[in-house]
Amino acid sequence: MPHIVTNNRTELIEAARGDRPLDLVIKDVNLVNVFTCEIYLADIGLYGDRIAVAGPAGAYDLQAQQTIDGRGKWASPGFVDTHLHIESSMVTPANYAAAVLPHGATTSIIDPHEIGNVLGMEGVRYMVEASEGLPLRVYITIPSCVPAVPGKETAGADFGPQEVAEMLTWPRVIAVAEVMDYMGVVNGSPKMVGIIEAGLDAGVTIQGHSPLLRDRLLNAYAAAGIDNDHELRAGDEALQKLRMGILPLLKVSSFGNFLPQMMPSLKEAKYLEVALCTDDIEPADLLRNGHMDRVIRKVIAHGIEPAVAIRWGTYTGARHYKLRDHGAIAPGYYADIVLLDSLEEVRVGQVIAGGKVVVEDGTLVDPIPEPVVATAMENSVRITSEISADTFRLKPPIAEGTVVVNAVALQPTRLTTLETVTVPVLDGRLDLTTLDGDFCFLTIIPRHGQAHPPATVLLKGLSLQEGAMATTIAHDSHNLMVAGKHPEDMLIAARALQSCGGGIAIVLDGQVLNTIELPLAGLMSTKPVSELAPDMDALNDTARRLGIDARAPALAMSGLALTVIPEVRISDLVGLMDVDTQEAVPLFA
Amino acid sequence: MPHIVTNNRTELIEAARGDRPLDLVIKDVNLVNVFTCEIYLADIGLYGDRIAVAGPAGAYDLQAQQTIDGRGKWASPGFVDTHLHIESSMVTPANYAAAVLPHGATTSIIDPHEIGNVLGMEGVRYMVEASEGLPLRVYITIPSCVPAVPGKETAGADFGPQEVAEMLTWPRVIAVAEVMDYMGVVNGSPKMVGIIEAGLDAGVTIQGHSPLLRDRLLNAYAAAGIDNDHELRAGDEALQKLRMGILPLLKVSSFGNFLPQMMPSLKEAKYLEVALCTDDIEPADLLRNGHMDRVIRKVIAHGIEPAVAIRWGTYTGARHYKLRDHGAIAPGYYADIVLLDSLEEVRVGQVIAGGKVVVEDGTLVDPIPEPVVATAMENSVRITSEISADTFRLKPPIAEGTVVVNAVALQPTRLTTLETVTVPVLDGRLDLTTLDGDFCFLTIIPRHGQAHPPATVLLKGLSLQEGAMATTIAHDSHNLMVAGKHPEDMLIAARALQSCGGGIAIVLDGQVLNTIELPLAGLMSTKPVSELAPDMDALNDTARRLGIDARAPALAMSGLALTVIPEVRISDLVGLMDVDTQEAVPLFA
Repeated sequence: MPHIVTNNRTELIEAARGDRPLDLVIKDVNLVNVFTCEIYLADIGLYGDRIAVAGPAGAYDLQAQQTIDGRGKWASPGFVDTHLHIESSMVTPANYAAAVLPHGATTSIIDPHEIGNVLGMEGVRYMVEASEGLPLRVYITIPSCVPAVPGKETAGADFGPQEVAEMLTWPRVIAVAEVMDYMGVVNGSPKMVGIIEAGLDAGVTIQGHSPLLRDRLLNAYAAAGIDNDHELRAGDEALQKLRMGILPLLKVSSFGNFLPQMMPSLKEAKYLEVALCTDDIEPADLLRNGHMDRVIRKVIAHGIEPAVAIRWGTYTGARHYKLRDHGAIAPGYYADIVLLDSLEEVRVGQVIAGGKVVVEDGTLVDPIPEPVVATAMENSVRITSEISADTFRLKPPIAEGTVVVNAVALQPTRLTTLETVTVPVLDGRLDLTTLDGDFCFLTIIPRHGQAHPPATVLLKGLSLQEGAMATTIAHDSHNLMVAGKHPEDMLIAARALQSCGGGIAIVLDGQVLNTIELPLAGLMSTKPVSELAPDMDALNDTARRLGIDARAPALAMSGLALTVIPEVRISDLVGLMDVDTQEAVPLFA
Repeated sequence: MPHIVTNNRTELIEAARGDRPLDLVIKDVNLVNVFTCEIYLADIGLYGDRIAVAGPAGAYDLQAQQTIDGRGKWASPGFVDTHLHIESSMVTPANYAAAVLPHGATTSIIDPHEIGNVLGMEGVRYMVEASEGLPLRVYITIPSCVPAVPGKETAGADFGPQEVAEMLTWPRVIAVAEVMDYMGVVNGSPKMVGIIEAGLDAGVTIQGHSPLLRDRLLNAYAAAGIDNDHELRAGDEALQKLRMGILPLLKVSSFGNFLPQMMPSLKEAKYLEVALCTDDIEPADLLRNGHMDRVIRKVIAHGIEPAVAIRWGTYTGARHYKLRDHGAIAPGYYADIVLLDSLEEVRVGQVIAGGKVVVEDGTLVDPIPEPVVATAMENSVRITSEISADTFRLKPPIAEGTVVVNAVALQPTRLTTLETVTVPVLDGRLDLTTLDGDFCFLTIIPRHGQAHPPATVLLKGLSLQEGAMATTIAHDSHNLMVAGKHPEDMLIAARALQSCGGGIAIVLDGQVLNTIELPLAGLMSTKPVSELAPDMDALNDTARRLGIDARAPALAMSGLALTVIPEVRISDLVGLMDVDTQEAVPLFA
């Protein structure tokens, strides 16, 4: 647990009682009191990194070197984001902080699940080190499902109870991260129960992740020790979880606003308190559409009083994770304050973090330097198997004629189905040119140093009409995936990522058209969001020109290796895989 | 922090999902859901000491060896008492458990302040050992103000930051107990700040105790790290504390119902959540009038919905102290359940603690054995100074005539004032016989082995007309106090307590009329409440016959050494003491 003893407790007390000058005073501001959900005119006095005094406007005649005129503004505690993956924003923790502080987030509870899958404990350690001393308070949760499906795919690591227990002793670690293998839990898998027990033993919070789990099985999941859930898909499910003491963490992420399904059912409760999170936010979405400010705005739009919505977005989450002195404006609390120009619209003007003004007029005041990191971040794309253009071809069992192929069909919902397709064979190769629909090859290349060869399947639904796209963002094991019409282009795309340490690349007619370099684990850029977002826009434009018709074309294929989402996926170990049975599906019917 | 890993997590999950028989099922009961404040018909399935499953009545066809028909009853989580002194009930923890379980309390957060003042760390250790393994879950808070006023009185111990830090590592310790020396905190006393910092460093809750503290000084108290307060005396004070994040712990104790002063102001908050406690409950009051059930009943009487009042009396307190899996009826929570025959009246029928039915028809099912205790509990009344009848005489500076005496005048409010009285002197002794009003002598005898002699003062207001009463319950240092008309009777009363290890004794005309033996630190009996209460009744009757006109005559003098309550008190070190200046007042004006 974080160390909360300030070196200056005595000075803080003196400043609070009025016998030591305050550092900063905010006068005549509409204070959002998250304990009582009242809003009233107040003065707030800061000393060091803490709030020393807060009371009715004018009551104490507070004086300080620096005074902020709070008239016409609202003072909210800094927002507490209760579950998120920095990797989804594809930037370092420092650049993430620079991007989210202007949206009012001052505390982020991160799950380094993606980098953990690639780099194992060293990846988690990197996130701890790279988030040390930022103006954004970053707390770490320890990934519980690395890999997502043990024995059926290869990640860069395998976390059992012992590894989790060890990481739970690291600084700023406050929870076991989303326990996605909920059927493992419900079925009493020793590994999953062991990981949860490691968390309970360490006295930390256990994050859930059980979309649509209900009724008796949800009872079993709750009995295991699950404390919250951000993967809610239906209102009745959310209400069941609330009633069982599993705190809903309502989210608005780049994948959508999940409130409309939840709020009407949740409002049936006579008493309703939930916390809020962003989970996954893409760079461009973050830049344009916001973050925790957006979540709170959407909650207010559902008829929740602003002070209550702000309580959910601050104090409720902090208290749930036992983060003392976070999430409220009161004496002794950290001086993390958001000054809003509009309450209903949650429009952030100034942000104070740890007593310092870090955002003015919605803009970061000072750049945030990268913390010094001891963990070496080398090229993590380690391809041991031989690859050539042939790697990307699906080899039919005959030389000429037709074969029936079992293909992965990607739906617009990002779910998949198994589809059989009759494909002509010419000269020992599948000929996709005569097929209806939009078929291409999809190859998964082991990139964690595994010795086994790549696997290729037939993919429908990506709408790729020409060229190839490769990515090392391939949930959750993040092997190298390449989709393409032409094996030659696919090889070039794969080689491009291998040489730059990972990222996303598009190739057409032998030329690399766009590359997003993500040298940190093949997941994260060294650029800030403001520079990365235009690069992503450009790559998405190219992907759309090649036919990929998706909300975020660059990430359209990133879930195809996620072997826990129905119905068929691709795995480096199994190849074409039936998610239900967890067994291989023959490539040819 | 308590260890919350059950040995049977996997079995619990199996029972929850339906693949292992439940141990006990409660069917068709009105479940009070403290997360949503809903009440609905439900079935509850228990496995071992935990709740495995809870859901709508009939939904899961729950089966078990033992079934309780819940029709017409309400199932509430076991009550969580957020601050109390077992010593006030004058019994051992085991006997306390036997007395309070029938009133629905299943979790008690105790402050062993009194025994700590007498026996120091060994006293606290005794309470830890003597509460181990009881069906009542006992958590310990570490006394922060031993002695109450350092340097001005002698307790059996002196706790500084180091002692507190050491005790915070002991099992089931979850908080620093009531920080009564609030002016020490507000003034930045290194000892008090050090004790609070020891608590913050250990990650525990810091209990407050600051009657009537408000405004800027309350900001300083909050800034020091205080988390809650049960010593609320005024509504506006309670609301200020709530707004500053100091959780009000509303109480109904044997000293009164403090809700009427608080509730109207607290209800001004748009959102109100508080926790509940009993603090001090005398044996007879406990037997006759209840405990946490009474507190919740009184809260409901103030117009708070029963489900909300029960939330405050259960989950709110448990969560505040970070007691995982306490205070709710949900899968994975401890199976501590109160079955109420009446919701509005909070009438307790059955109580289940740790999965076992411990109370039927309001009566304890099985006796609760005393835990084996390693700490030796020897006679703690260690009087080193010579005592004789002369000890109890106030020696005037003249042999004959009149003197003006500075006397302690006890008010019906238990406050005191300094009063000057002209007293005749006969043969070198004060003659009380001719005085108006009810004057007697009050002597404090050092009983912690101190070398210095006893001190005697003149007392008005106890109404004692004849005889003498002695007690080792003398807050907070618990020296031996004797009030009496006749020094000879006073000596006999003191000797009676010295020989039995402390308690309360009444003497008239040289005969001991009543004795309550409290051999455990001079504070606690070895008898159960059911036997102790009649003894107390008998002693109170005698005390009333001797003229003591108070709600609880046996305890009427127990606060006269409490050197923090205005205006004058008696101290073993200072004698007659001005509370404001903390200096001695001359006995003769």
